[in-house]
Amino acid sequence: MNADDDKLSAEDRLIARYFAPLATHPGALGLSDDAAFIKPPPGTDVVLKTDAIIGGVHFFAEDDAHDVARKALRVNLSDLAAKGAKPIGFLLSLALPKETGGDWLAAFAQGLRDDAEAYGCPLFGGDTDRTPGPITISIAMFGSVPEGTMVRRAGARPGDRVFVSGSIGDAALGLAMRKNTNLGATWKLSEAQRQHLASRYLLPQPRNALAEALRMHASAAMDVSDGLVGDFTKLCRASKVAAEIAAACVPLSDAAKAAVAAEPAMLETALTGGDDFEIVCTVPVAKAEAFRAAAKTANVAVAEIGEIKAGEGVRFVDSHGQALAFKRTSFSHF
Amino acid sequence: MNADDDKLSAEDRLIARYFAPLATHPGALGLSDDAAFIKPPPGTDVVLKTDAIIGGVHFFAEDDAHDVARKALRVNLSDLAAKGAKPIGFLLSLALPKETGGDWLAAFAQGLRDDAEAYGCPLFGGDTDRTPGPITISIAMFGSVPEGTMVRRAGARPGDRVFVSGSIGDAALGLAMRKNTNLGATWKLSEAQRQHLASRYLLPQPRNALAEALRMHASAAMDVSDGLVGDFTKLCRASKVAAEIAAACVPLSDAAKAAVAAEPAMLETALTGGDDFEIVCTVPVAKAEAFRAAAKTANVAVAEIGEIKAGEGVRFVDSHGQALAFKRTSFSHF
Repeated sequence: MNADDDKLSAEDRLIARYFAPLATHPGALGLSDDAAFIKPPPGTDVVLKTDAIIGGVHFFAEDDAHDVARKALRVNLSDLAAKGAKPIGFLLSLALPKETGGDWLAAFAQGLRDDAEAYGCPLFGGDTDRTPGPITISIAMFGSVPEGTMVRRAGARPGDRVFVSGSIGDAALGLAMRKNTNLGATWKLSEAQRQHLASRYLLPQPRNALAEALRMHASAAMDVSDGLVGDFTKLCRASKVAAEIAAACVPLSDAAKAAVAAEPAMLETALTGGDDFEIVCTVPVAKAEAFRAAAKTANVAVAEIGEIKAGEGVRFVDSHGQALAFKRTSFSHF
Repeated sequence: MNADDDKLSAEDRLIARYFAPLATHPGALGLSDDAAFIKPPPGTDVVLKTDAIIGGVHFFAEDDAHDVARKALRVNLSDLAAKGAKPIGFLLSLALPKETGGDWLAAFAQGLRDDAEAYGCPLFGGDTDRTPGPITISIAMFGSVPEGTMVRRAGARPGDRVFVSGSIGDAALGLAMRKNTNLGATWKLSEAQRQHLASRYLLPQPRNALAEALRMHASAAMDVSDGLVGDFTKLCRASKVAAEIAAACVPLSDAAKAAVAAEPAMLETALTGGDDFEIVCTVPVAKAEAFRAAAKTANVAVAEIGEIKAGEGVRFVDSHGQALAFKRTSFSHF
């Protein structure tokens, strides 16, 4: 900050102090203009996504601002990953209650900066407002794919194998544990297992390292943000196909396995709860080995969980081949 | 809506009913995917902008949802206009309180649709959430310009003429009148004059018709959203120049003139209040006539209000050449 500060409005000072350092792309013009620009190379499609997180809805008011910032970016980065896209950058729309102080903003900006660097995703512009409501962080994110190669939900074909990345259900179990602090004891979890579930809710680990493998090999993909069962059902509906999924093949962390062993109803929570930010995709049989190899090179665990069928409807079956019934298949705000 | 409805979550139904009809661009995939894409023609820069409006902050809770939707789009369209960009489309992030009903949403979606058509700016994707706070509408908008031609704030040179579009101060006076319903009588305004000021606050009239003229002729431009004095000062600071503006040349509507005649302090409100959504720009002398002609062809009124000087600082002078002093130069949320 320089001596010119006193001529700036408080809003401009806030932007100059906290956000301009994140605007490292030349097209962002250091946030000194009304708009920014990108110059997509010929043969590039620009992939567009927006997702917001709201205090008291998607995170707790007391959550660390550094993590909140990264969660806001990562829920969008996860969609780019699923579409096979490489991040270009983001726009930030931030609504803050009057009581949000400089400490919160400094930690929030540092979180954005850390992930902007880690994922190659600089800030292109933003808008800051006061709100009488909770902290509301809306991100619009841009990525790039070679022309015509964005991985869609529609594209799965009968016979394709179904894969899911990482582990499913941790975040939903972490959230349940946070709402009922006795659950860790009920489930007889070790301290490390409790921390694993808690951190998986607090901070998604988007699978951007898998984007290229998806683009090269997947016939369809989406990120799992509102529960595996409901989200994968959407993919099958968009692809106009059915599927059979072996519930026992769905990858669970040790902590999630322990919770399900102690309380079998937690399997439904794991399979239908939100905030996984893993990838579910379908891969033609002929490409399955190449996909596994590419995922391994990318250092992202993937598990085969089932197969696409002709028809409609998704069946999750247990080890006896019996279809599981779910009370609700996914998280919905409405 | 079809028989498949019962398989969709309430959130998906909301999107299918209200928002999918706005997603007319093929790259939006009918909002059936996690993301959308655009294919910018070679030699195109994509211009990026985000701006949010919040109930109780940028609009009144009782405002017509149709107008609220259009205001949300138009505050962003105005920035594209100032940058010389042609709209491509937008992303919508919408946070709604529980009590927001279907009537509100239907009117809101219709407002978006009307302006999406009027400005050639379709919906590419969105996110809907519940909020314990007020209605919060965040738009991220994309436009296009031929490579390297985005009009910047930095670019004004000594000797350039300063122009402003439309009329200044109406929205600020309309807002003042709305907060104090006696003002219309105090200012002895006709019913038509009152309605003019009220509507200028309620619904911006962005100058997208002027975009091409700005791109061809302006050395610098920005939209006037936080008050002419403060915003133009920002432009001069970015351009590292000074300016002298003749306050008497700043275009006022008949209604604003009547308000200022009745209460001279309203001149400061007009010159420093927000929500004009007009364009202030600088044009080299050699291009001034061509700019006037292009604006006339575009059917947008423009007025010459001053001249760029070497140095720093912006002086607004009265008809005696005396500098006006302002208590505050622009609107700031912080």
